[in-house]
Amino acid sequence: MAGVEIVEVGPRDGLQNEKVLLPTEVKVDYITRALDAGVRRVEATAFVHPGRVPQMADAEAVMASVPRRAGVTYIGLVLNRRGLDRALAAGVDEVNVVVVASDEFSRRNQGTTTAEALDVWHGIASAAGVPASLTIAAAFGCPFTGQVSVDRVLEIAAEACRSAPREIAIADTIGVGVPTQVRTLVRELKALGVPLRAHFHNTRNTGYANAVAALEAGVRTLDASIGGIGGCPFAPQATGNIATEDLTYLLHGMAVDTGLDLPALAATGTWIGERLGIRTPAQLGRTAPFPPLPQNGNGVSITP
Amino acid sequence: MAGVEIVEVGPRDGLQNEKVLLPTEVKVDYITRALDAGVRRVEATAFVHPGRVPQMADAEAVMASVPRRAGVTYIGLVLNRRGLDRALAAGVDEVNVVVVASDEFSRRNQGTTTAEALDVWHGIASAAGVPASLTIAAAFGCPFTGQVSVDRVLEIAAEACRSAPREIAIADTIGVGVPTQVRTLVRELKALGVPLRAHFHNTRNTGYANAVAALEAGVRTLDASIGGIGGCPFAPQATGNIATEDLTYLLHGMAVDTGLDLPALAATGTWIGERLGIRTPAQLGRTAPFPPLPQNGNGVSITP
Repeated sequence: MAGVEIVEVGPRDGLQNEKVLLPTEVKVDYITRALDAGVRRVEATAFVHPGRVPQMADAEAVMASVPRRAGVTYIGLVLNRRGLDRALAAGVDEVNVVVVASDEFSRRNQGTTTAEALDVWHGIASAAGVPASLTIAAAFGCPFTGQVSVDRVLEIAAEACRSAPREIAIADTIGVGVPTQVRTLVRELKALGVPLRAHFHNTRNTGYANAVAALEAGVRTLDASIGGIGGCPFAPQATGNIATEDLTYLLHGMAVDTGLDLPALAATGTWIGERLGIRTPAQLGRTAPFPPLPQNGNGVSITP
Repeated sequence: MAGVEIVEVGPRDGLQNEKVLLPTEVKVDYITRALDAGVRRVEATAFVHPGRVPQMADAEAVMASVPRRAGVTYIGLVLNRRGLDRALAAGVDEVNVVVVASDEFSRRNQGTTTAEALDVWHGIASAAGVPASLTIAAAFGCPFTGQVSVDRVLEIAAEACRSAPREIAIADTIGVGVPTQVRTLVRELKALGVPLRAHFHNTRNTGYANAVAALEAGVRTLDASIGGIGGCPFAPQATGNIATEDLTYLLHGMAVDTGLDLPALAATGTWIGERLGIRTPAQLGRTAPFPPLPQNGNGVSITP
């Protein structure tokens, strides 16, 4: 199967939901390590109110320090025109706008209805001057109102397409989706002709199965976070995004190219867990390499 | 889609790989709670050498105390004739024999080559007097020698079929398999005409995707452990079997019937984690119900 692009969202969706506030230089180091492992598209930060999301308060400082390398795209998440202005001033290559699929969650997340958020999207897309993508959050379910219908997501996506997004992402923000739902949603959205991205949380251990379903339904861009860091504000003990290293293991095993260096990703997952003082949800950093390295008779690796 | 049978293997594969030795009455309580949640087939214990597997030293005592209910099948794992004799004396309804797909792992696990283990299987199957199933361990990879070919697994299964197993299980003992591999293996094994069971560990976060792949390839019986307890002796910090509650959430979401009570499973997963003093790999016990329960304006549930 042809390759898949993994968008690294750990610096934004991961760190945003961790309790520990990391220094800017550690965030930049996390991003640099991702690039060194082959990542070429990074959601680096969010230009949102620092009072509401203190983890992202240093957005400008992060963007001022990330390495600029050929072929690397930095995405900034924005929710309004003020965020767009900040993101453009900070030099992002792309903006990602969030529209939440349910009005109730949308109000609590960004103080607008879904329709109002779509209006904001149109304004941002027309003013951005850089590629603008749209993420439909809670596309698989809302923590307050429950099921979100396929028709609802389709309506939002169709409306968003009037402003020619670079890409539309379907996000399982609270990790409730299942593969059959993923396939139905992707099949319907493909009719719009817009490039699709999928964003899964592993809150209920369905995230990797959903990623496989999205891939096999035709999605070629997947979000993931190195270390699987992030959690969920609606389930304090839950895990976060699917982990870049575990997704990469799975994809490589299925002969899907990612361009990523699995040992480097796994080492970075372990490293960021240590910085955050957490046991990361990612597994690859805790398991033996497979296929195994050459071993001596006692099962102890004799290679470095 | 038609229903799936989940075989509860937490009392055997789960507890066998946990450091904490539970009292017999807690094991029986674990099994009883599984039955109360709708489980009808349980791998209750292993009749193996208590010096090698101290967690299973009370196999007879467990079987003497489990509730006997109509429609419930208790499976005992056995590796040799001595184990079979013990299992039959203890009153199991079915025996499950393990044959490891690689000689190196087989020697370390049970002191025989794969071919010798198949001879043992034939002897047990002919003498059992109760249904005898076969699990092909390390069917997706060996921690010592790496890749295990589909042909190798097929040869083992074909040879095993000479003694008419009730069922053949393919086990990803070390959690290295991926969905494409699952589909290939299931497709080839189906040609043998024997009922298939699949057994996945979530060591590298591929377990649930593999379960979906097996299901959609035609497997109708899946192993899982409540709480996802178990770990892996070859990766001390790794997770265990896929969790019964998380698998059930996924299957119900895909409109696949299991006959199981999801809240009861999730509560039992939390309970066994407390008994073992561990944070279980299962997620359902830590997440909010979905769809959400009716809530008041502060997001606090107003139903029990």
